[in-house]
Amino acid sequence: MNMDFLNDERLNRLNHSAAHVLAQAVKHLYPQAKFWVGPVVEEGFYYDIDLGEDVIRDEDIPKIEKEMKKIIKDGKRIAREEISKAEAIEMFKDDEYKLDLINDLEDGTITVYRQGDFVDLCRGPHVDTVKEVKNFKLMKHSGAYWKGDKNNKVLQRIYGVCFETKEDLEAYLNLLEEAKRRDHKKLGRELDIFMMSEYAPGMPFFLPNGMIIRNLLEEFWYEVHKDDYSFIKTPIMMSKELWELSGHWANYQDNMYTCDVDDRVYAIKPMNCPGGMLVYKNGLHSYKDLPIRSGELGQVHRHEASGALNGLFRVRTFTQDDAHIFMREDQIESEILRLLKLIDKIYSTFKLDYRIELSTRPEDKYIGTIESWDKSEAILQKAIEASGKEWKLNPGDGAFYGPKLDFHIRDSLGRSWQCGTIQLDANLPERFDLTYVDADGTKKRPVMLHRAIFGSIERFIGILIEHYAGAFPTWLAPVQVAVLPVKNEYHLDYANEVVELLKAQGIRVDLDAREEKLGYRIRENQMKKSPFMLILGDTERDEKTISFRRYGEQKTTTVSQEEFVALVTKEIETKE
Amino acid sequence: MNMDFLNDERLNRLNHSAAHVLAQAVKHLYPQAKFWVGPVVEEGFYYDIDLGEDVIRDEDIPKIEKEMKKIIKDGKRIAREEISKAEAIEMFKDDEYKLDLINDLEDGTITVYRQGDFVDLCRGPHVDTVKEVKNFKLMKHSGAYWKGDKNNKVLQRIYGVCFETKEDLEAYLNLLEEAKRRDHKKLGRELDIFMMSEYAPGMPFFLPNGMIIRNLLEEFWYEVHKDDYSFIKTPIMMSKELWELSGHWANYQDNMYTCDVDDRVYAIKPMNCPGGMLVYKNGLHSYKDLPIRSGELGQVHRHEASGALNGLFRVRTFTQDDAHIFMREDQIESEILRLLKLIDKIYSTFKLDYRIELSTRPEDKYIGTIESWDKSEAILQKAIEASGKEWKLNPGDGAFYGPKLDFHIRDSLGRSWQCGTIQLDANLPERFDLTYVDADGTKKRPVMLHRAIFGSIERFIGILIEHYAGAFPTWLAPVQVAVLPVKNEYHLDYANEVVELLKAQGIRVDLDAREEKLGYRIRENQMKKSPFMLILGDTERDEKTISFRRYGEQKTTTVSQEEFVALVTKEIETKE
Repeated sequence: MNMDFLNDERLNRLNHSAAHVLAQAVKHLYPQAKFWVGPVVEEGFYYDIDLGEDVIRDEDIPKIEKEMKKIIKDGKRIAREEISKAEAIEMFKDDEYKLDLINDLEDGTITVYRQGDFVDLCRGPHVDTVKEVKNFKLMKHSGAYWKGDKNNKVLQRIYGVCFETKEDLEAYLNLLEEAKRRDHKKLGRELDIFMMSEYAPGMPFFLPNGMIIRNLLEEFWYEVHKDDYSFIKTPIMMSKELWELSGHWANYQDNMYTCDVDDRVYAIKPMNCPGGMLVYKNGLHSYKDLPIRSGELGQVHRHEASGALNGLFRVRTFTQDDAHIFMREDQIESEILRLLKLIDKIYSTFKLDYRIELSTRPEDKYIGTIESWDKSEAILQKAIEASGKEWKLNPGDGAFYGPKLDFHIRDSLGRSWQCGTIQLDANLPERFDLTYVDADGTKKRPVMLHRAIFGSIERFIGILIEHYAGAFPTWLAPVQVAVLPVKNEYHLDYANEVVELLKAQGIRVDLDAREEKLGYRIRENQMKKSPFMLILGDTERDEKTISFRRYGEQKTTTVSQEEFVALVTKEIETKE
Repeated sequence: MNMDFLNDERLNRLNHSAAHVLAQAVKHLYPQAKFWVGPVVEEGFYYDIDLGEDVIRDEDIPKIEKEMKKIIKDGKRIAREEISKAEAIEMFKDDEYKLDLINDLEDGTITVYRQGDFVDLCRGPHVDTVKEVKNFKLMKHSGAYWKGDKNNKVLQRIYGVCFETKEDLEAYLNLLEEAKRRDHKKLGRELDIFMMSEYAPGMPFFLPNGMIIRNLLEEFWYEVHKDDYSFIKTPIMMSKELWELSGHWANYQDNMYTCDVDDRVYAIKPMNCPGGMLVYKNGLHSYKDLPIRSGELGQVHRHEASGALNGLFRVRTFTQDDAHIFMREDQIESEILRLLKLIDKIYSTFKLDYRIELSTRPEDKYIGTIESWDKSEAILQKAIEASGKEWKLNPGDGAFYGPKLDFHIRDSLGRSWQCGTIQLDANLPERFDLTYVDADGTKKRPVMLHRAIFGSIERFIGILIEHYAGAFPTWLAPVQVAVLPVKNEYHLDYANEVVELLKAQGIRVDLDAREEKLGYRIRENQMKKSPFMLILGDTERDEKTISFRRYGEQKTTTVSQEEFVALVTKEIETKE
């Protein structure tokens, strides 16, 4: 099921029209209602409504839905009309909200959409008749300040979604249910992965199980990079002059935390690049040394409004798996191809599919020549076409300093997350006056690219929690094997023997030898979602075997100790 | 050779008396000289002298030494005299410096020391005759503000050292030469380990080879802790309220960097403890769960004056290998014993000998009962006595919150560095109201200890650089094997074969196949101090063997490929 409300053209239209039907229904039920805006957003659509003294309550939602269904059944056409600014002002003369919107519009560009007794100022486009939006659902409601300004009046905001088919709508609602069940904040707490504190909003504390996952991800990252990359670590804070040199002070200051040391202003780094540039500048580089691939797992801090914070997904500090690649122009293509391979390897390890977006030269603000942009864009496009991956062009969406590739992974629920990025950057090498000595002895400017694959290790862990619903694959699971003796009196010695055997193989084991009923311990250990649960009783002890259940399965399998060790070890090694 | 000028009683006396002889000699050569203070310090002694318009130049030092020798040869007794404050004022009436000192002294406690024509206000003690200080040397000179205040006059400061025997003095001077050769700032640059930048004074940048060492140390640290400890990661900055709760805001604010977020003051953490307390408080703990050993490799920031900064030894940010252990009172002894074993294991890995210092209850300011202090101190003392290690008592030197053990390692030059620490802390569990549920169902306060073993990973790397003179043991060496084909035309293919073979075993290899003479490449690679250098020519290629030189040796050994892999792999595994 497609749920890209913003980018899928048909889905976007459907949701836009559903917003109008919502407004029409509200107008029927609340004649005093006035309407601000009703856009399509990432999660469907909403409409912001002024109901005067009235507010929407949970119990009002079914009534509104009922009225919407009536309107839909009635099946009116949705008609587009082009009108002049003067006509628009006349048409909405009693509606201060629409007048406010009209004020910002140019004459000759104004359209309204009409369906039965309802007309709305709107750029469109819409579906042809209201019948088409029948597979809709209202999702939630809240208050929202007019224009997002807390000095303004609070409007009533109602959210909804609309799909082409009933099946899609149902699939979507199931997915939301499933996503709620997998919520990484809930599972993160239950599985001892991370916590938050009021003393540091947006700055996660990693708990023991979270640290195991985090360290394994970092180890994996180093492992797949170590043959090609060198690694560095740059300071958390550096003085203002550096950020002036890099341009962040002028362009990014609002998102940066600052701090005074000895009458000098320091910024806590929001990005690792300037530090990386200083390291490049620290040495002399010959054309033979390039490409230099310099990686840094660097912790950055960026301001986010407290209302926007969301578990590990939206934080104020995170660790980027950054790298800067310094190269000659003739090396761009091979570097991009090499990166695409690396990215594919990393995402595949987590069974995450992905698509690529190529963003090209902006219309006006850009540095460098059109020729060099065209050349780089052609290289990027050729490389992603060769990769055979699904991709999309975002014309004009590149940064002013170069074109970029963004990698959108798709999790097991089909949700999309932008994680990886490759950005060519012609700006920082210029600002930091980076050079290498070419074959002819002259100084040349290297081409540089930024890249990240996890994006943020914290957010990636959040995504993995939901992707796996907390049941991590064997290699990542904080506890790989839970060991339960049936009855301590008879089976604890053998359980300890098995625990020692597994530990000696580097397997992460947890022994549950509490004096509790086996059934109770089985249920409790299932909550912890370890990939293997061993239940060791008389037979296992007497025959020196191991009986195990895989997480999520009822079936018990009995194997020899050697077979079990081989099985677990193989899953760890292959990361399956 | 003992070089603990401050703490060795005899050495302290000798240096103190040598300072007086220095002053006497200066007075002979510069009759206008007036004297401020001449203390014994970590590096020997110095005297601060007002020479009026004169300044000391390098060429003056031999003249002063010559005059000192004359005085020493003359062999006067050093006589102690007790005088009243009035007599002291009369005696030094023309000397504003000594009058300033006398001003702060109490009548009845004033002594002067006299040798021949020289008398100095001094608390002593001194040696009996100037003859005893004959094994001295003046080391350096500089300007120094009177009382360290830059608004005051600049005095001339002359440094020196004095030893009991000529052999000790020579050994000390050789050691200084050797230490200079091993200076971690010099080697850190030459070996691509770390750099500093004016954009972040006191905040080291780790370069590729430094990151290899750093990551190996962290991996080793996790490895030796993983069976007993869990690990956490707490935020870099937390709000002021937390530091008020912990007491750092009141007592440590001057060393903390702060930063504003949304009208709230945050402190960049100078210590990991408060975050660790929040993690403990996040869960419920039963007496059966204790001890909880919670480790954090946490990066802290603490202010240091820019003049005090010194490579990796004195920095503004460093990573502590911290852990907090929460336990019942009956677990203290076994935990301390376990920690002493762990610390011994870690230091031994680096062939670092060490001694322990036990600091006990301060005279007045302390929390808790004398009984509980006595008990803890007895446990600590018993444990270190059982360890068989050299140890020393520092009565009254404990923190107000508990007694502590400090671990002073001794490097290959015999220099001493305080690295590890174990501190019992009765304060934070109280302030954070930490509890566990005891067997009887009541809430109890856990005993807590802080501990660090490397102390600071950055500083420890600095110590290791000097300890090993940059020639790291195989397991730690950034490049373990340098491979040099004798002549690329004939031997490069075989060299590549060997490189691939070693890489496949996870060995860090560097191929030097530059078109340069073999002798030149050998010399250049020796500078990099890799443990093994392979020189591969006709014989090696034809017989599929490997000829290697160990760092620092001239001897070449030829072995089979398998033997060489086994040799290197063994040294990596055993960390020998």
